[in-house]
Amino acid sequence: MSATLVKPVLYSYFRSSCSWRVRIVLATKEIAYDQMPVNLVKDGGQQLSAEFQAVNSMQQVPALKIDGVTLSQSMAIMQYLEETRPNPRLLPQDPKKRAQVRMISDHIVSGIQPLQNLSVLQKVGEKKMEWAQHYISHGFQAVERILQQTAGCYCVGDQVSLADVCLVPQVYNAERYKVDLTPYPTIIKINKALLELEAFQVSHPSRQPDTPPELRA
Amino acid sequence: MSATLVKPVLYSYFRSSCSWRVRIVLATKEIAYDQMPVNLVKDGGQQLSAEFQAVNSMQQVPALKIDGVTLSQSMAIMQYLEETRPNPRLLPQDPKKRAQVRMISDHIVSGIQPLQNLSVLQKVGEKKMEWAQHYISHGFQAVERILQQTAGCYCVGDQVSLADVCLVPQVYNAERYKVDLTPYPTIIKINKALLELEAFQVSHPSRQPDTPPELRA
Repeated sequence: MSATLVKPVLYSYFRSSCSWRVRIVLATKEIAYDQMPVNLVKDGGQQLSAEFQAVNSMQQVPALKIDGVTLSQSMAIMQYLEETRPNPRLLPQDPKKRAQVRMISDHIVSGIQPLQNLSVLQKVGEKKMEWAQHYISHGFQAVERILQQTAGCYCVGDQVSLADVCLVPQVYNAERYKVDLTPYPTIIKINKALLELEAFQVSHPSRQPDTPPELRA
Repeated sequence: MSATLVKPVLYSYFRSSCSWRVRIVLATKEIAYDQMPVNLVKDGGQQLSAEFQAVNSMQQVPALKIDGVTLSQSMAIMQYLEETRPNPRLLPQDPKKRAQVRMISDHIVSGIQPLQNLSVLQKVGEKKMEWAQHYISHGFQAVERILQQTAGCYCVGDQVSLADVCLVPQVYNAERYKVDLTPYPTIIKINKALLELEAFQVSHPSRQPDTPPELRA
């Protein structure tokens, strides 16, 4: 069977915000895929197993098996999907607008999420709630300021883009760590509008194959 | 004067690894620019000043004023330069190879550097050396494994790419935090080859306008 006929496989964890990003893109582009749950908590983290290392040497989710290769890192995966399955577009065609989308995305992907991910909070220990709140609030201050320059209905104008794909899972994390979102009215407004869209709903952590019954929507 | 005739201005700090990435790309593409130093240590961090916030609402370096806009986030800046000044290319044309380049870049940009940057280490306090070593070593283990699949002379094959641009400043940080690099022979070899190239030399932290005399090469 040729690589293009094989359904992609997403290695994912229901609550991983980076996994959710990729699920949104797959849903937006209507790409059918199978999902393989990797539990980041059970057995000391199944992503660290020898079995999973053979799939993804980076030992992280998400990983996407597609077109005969296995990709990791959510931004790399999403941009690969954008370049090989461009409809509908999640990056604008104008280079300056693309840069705006990437600025917002990268600020979340590099500037916020890594500082509040599971393994870092485990290392931080008892002060983890305060630590997560600090980095999410601090990061959202900058995101709110830039959105005031770029936003329409969504993060950059009126088209859904990768910036939106990164924003919604980060707001989900913010709520999980009880961050006060009142100072970020633009983020609140855009997040609400995005959660109306089907691609953001079907990919939601509350609706995945590995979502525990008590967290199901 | 039209935007394209105005020399770009890079807001940069000599020792910021994210700033160095952008300086490498500007040098590789032979783009003339002016540099405005922003001292991340002096005055409690000049990037936090109201004056600099007016330049870059994200209050971070690097920021690049170019073509009438100000961009921030190193990956967003570098990809903007790649899309508007494609010669020489720093992303391969094949989508799978581009994904490899982005996987390595993003692993450094999102998975390593944010966890050992100045503001995080200040928050970590007295255990900062051990903390930085932990995250750099852990990240380099994954980078070394993936490089064993992708590398030629450089990170992905024999062409310099954004992955190389991200790698060299991260190795510089590793050395600064006295990380034992022995377990990463591929990283060592590629870093050495890259440091032979002029674009990596002229952009080096030891040769910037704001490099203190005692750290000059």
